[in-house]
Amino acid sequence: MNFEGLDHIGIAVKDIEKSNQLFEILMGQAPYKQESVDSENVLTSFFDAGNMKVELLQATAESSAIYKFIEKRGEGLHHIAFEVEDIYAKMKQFEADGFRLLNKQPKQGADNKLICFIHPKDTNGVLIELCQTQTEEKEL
Amino acid sequence: MNFEGLDHIGIAVKDIEKSNQLFEILMGQAPYKQESVDSENVLTSFFDAGNMKVELLQATAESSAIYKFIEKRGEGLHHIAFEVEDIYAKMKQFEADGFRLLNKQPKQGADNKLICFIHPKDTNGVLIELCQTQTEEKEL
Repeated sequence: MNFEGLDHIGIAVKDIEKSNQLFEILMGQAPYKQESVDSENVLTSFFDAGNMKVELLQATAESSAIYKFIEKRGEGLHHIAFEVEDIYAKMKQFEADGFRLLNKQPKQGADNKLICFIHPKDTNGVLIELCQTQTEEKEL
Repeated sequence: MNFEGLDHIGIAVKDIEKSNQLFEILMGQAPYKQESVDSENVLTSFFDAGNMKVELLQATAESSAIYKFIEKRGEGLHHIAFEVEDIYAKMKQFEADGFRLLNKQPKQGADNKLICFIHPKDTNGVLIELCQTQTEEKEL
């Protein structure tokens, strides 16, 4: 298997405060974390779904990919993120397999992750994120 | 928590044979099951992603929800399915919370599940499936 499991599902929303309330009723619990990711111009909130997480994303600028997504398709499922052990190795592998990557180097995502996206045109329209949790151990 | 975790992510595809090959490369393994769901006019295949499953869905008739989805939005993320212990109780609870259900009674889904969908207009455009695994024990 190429992945260590699904880490999270990303959902594009217009108003994260309203959506937090909605998903709190739906999931039966409050978000456990909220985080601003300035490099992506998004506000995020995370809900624990037991075996994975649900991430809500609201754009904070019109240049944000989330803003453009909602303009084009409306709110809804935006991406799915699989955890990998070694994001550099997986990026190399997927490129060799013919998948185009949206970023050539891993970038800093929410939730202390290094992330990379695969071009959705190469994966049946599904935006797939690879993510690797950064741990202090790895920096030693 | 209202759910027992995420059971699967459903992806609408035009040609399930081609997509099986694509996802086999992506996931690093072949689908572990293929199944025709006649009531929904879909062919499905399932990939094990460790902590949950990826379900590919191809329409077998123009009356299929998957056919209409692809006509309108193209291939891509279609729904997410959360496992519940008691689908009747959760349907009642979500209706009381103001969520509209797309079916008033659970119906037979793929993978030996009883399923029900929540109206995506009530969940930020996300089509959410509730599913309960049917077990022989429960019939005793």
